[in-house]
Amino acid sequence: MTVTTLSEHACFDGVVRFLEHQSSELGVGAKLGVFLPQEALSGKVVPVIHVLAGLTANYETFLIKSNIIRFAAQHGIGVVAPDTSPRNTGIEGEDKDYDLGSGAGFYVDATAEPWSKHYRMESYVGKELPLLTESLFPFDATRRGIIGHSMGGMGALIQALRYPERWKTVSVFAPICAPSRIPWGKKAFDAYFGGDLQKWEEYDPTILLENGYKPPSTILLDQGLKDQYLADLKPDALVAAAQQTGQRLQVRTHEAYDHGYWFIQSFIHDHIEHHVKGLKG
Amino acid sequence: MTVTTLSEHACFDGVVRFLEHQSSELGVGAKLGVFLPQEALSGKVVPVIHVLAGLTANYETFLIKSNIIRFAAQHGIGVVAPDTSPRNTGIEGEDKDYDLGSGAGFYVDATAEPWSKHYRMESYVGKELPLLTESLFPFDATRRGIIGHSMGGMGALIQALRYPERWKTVSVFAPICAPSRIPWGKKAFDAYFGGDLQKWEEYDPTILLENGYKPPSTILLDQGLKDQYLADLKPDALVAAAQQTGQRLQVRTHEAYDHGYWFIQSFIHDHIEHHVKGLKG
Repeated sequence: MTVTTLSEHACFDGVVRFLEHQSSELGVGAKLGVFLPQEALSGKVVPVIHVLAGLTANYETFLIKSNIIRFAAQHGIGVVAPDTSPRNTGIEGEDKDYDLGSGAGFYVDATAEPWSKHYRMESYVGKELPLLTESLFPFDATRRGIIGHSMGGMGALIQALRYPERWKTVSVFAPICAPSRIPWGKKAFDAYFGGDLQKWEEYDPTILLENGYKPPSTILLDQGLKDQYLADLKPDALVAAAQQTGQRLQVRTHEAYDHGYWFIQSFIHDHIEHHVKGLKG
Repeated sequence: MTVTTLSEHACFDGVVRFLEHQSSELGVGAKLGVFLPQEALSGKVVPVIHVLAGLTANYETFLIKSNIIRFAAQHGIGVVAPDTSPRNTGIEGEDKDYDLGSGAGFYVDATAEPWSKHYRMESYVGKELPLLTESLFPFDATRRGIIGHSMGGMGALIQALRYPERWKTVSVFAPICAPSRIPWGKKAFDAYFGGDLQKWEEYDPTILLENGYKPPSTILLDQGLKDQYLADLKPDALVAAAQQTGQRLQVRTHEAYDHGYWFIQSFIHDHIEHHVKGLKG
């Protein structure tokens, strides 16, 4: 296993490091960002939060725009930030649309051609990446949190609901809650799963809740009410499913806020507090 | 005077707003970013900090990557972020190099053809932009601070030294301190001033200090010692000039830190405290 350091940067007494490795799940080289707090640099085993970004973002976006590192450093928590899709797979048309292919892996394992060989983001972010980063750094496999935004919020919900044994804490900003009912999700699921409607259900957070899947702990969900994509995100569907099945979901709405990182940076502090309580409490 | 709102985003109970206006100094449309803290939205007159970014950045970069808004909001301070050059002036070759023309205005008023008609960033950031933003928002013209990074650090130093009556507080991250002695500066000054060596002296912060120019208050300067551009920034030259002339310069060096926004976000809090002391103390 060869891991190349692309760059590293001191930040809040710790280090932000960008890495590249050959991913076995994705079958291509994959880049990621990691934050190592001061404690981890001196060998202490620390909790870790994985962050899944939204459409068009990459492995740097959430780290540089969300203000997360300030608070991860304060609490001595590592951060892992994967890319939002495989890149340069050679699949025809992968760079054509912003909402399919490159930058739009939707954190699922594709089963339909031509995507199925490389577009295995669910297994990558849920299995390969935690194992890789925990082999490289003193991150505690029993104290993993996951945060996601938009498409990445959907990815974080899928991870938390389908694999609650992998994650201890989960929080999301403006997640895609019911992908099988909206244009983005329909387009992606149609491409990645083809006619297999069973798969559509397995990757729809609202349907997962309806079908009895349980998160490892209370999900914190922040949603701006001036979000330009609100109709496509459908937080109400997720709330209804959680109420119906008695699952733990704490939703906070914010009157004036929209979809981007200005919103995320305004509330990231509360999210880190939420994870700290679960990971260090 | 027509000012167009390009977008606005709630952030920390205030608003980040992106604007475009026809600049009389630049002779083209110019974009900028503004942060209005909650207090300003309810009409209270607040202090304001202008931020000048470095090469290749634009009017959004410093706002989204530096974490400045968190602390500006905490202290009820406005922020104004101009672009780093005029854009789309039609000057031949303006987009050719990263360090000349677009994204590289160096915050000077060019005097040589073909740049002199549009490349008037000194007058733009020092006169037109404060007047414009103070006519639009309740920003206090008697309580202006200025922060700059790299090329923008040079711009902030030029403003503070040549026009101390305009600014009350100044701080810089990894500024270009002696442009007339380094490749970036020589290339830019040669293009923007041609053979006029008098101009070279007027826009070199170290020479300005040597020639008796005085800042309005103590300059705070942070510099990382792993900065990949350290040899081109020459903070030692500025320090020597300040010592020689007894000018107020507080320099802090940081062993592990490099040139980018990971460095800036690690220390922005201290910079805002520095400005708060001078603007609100």
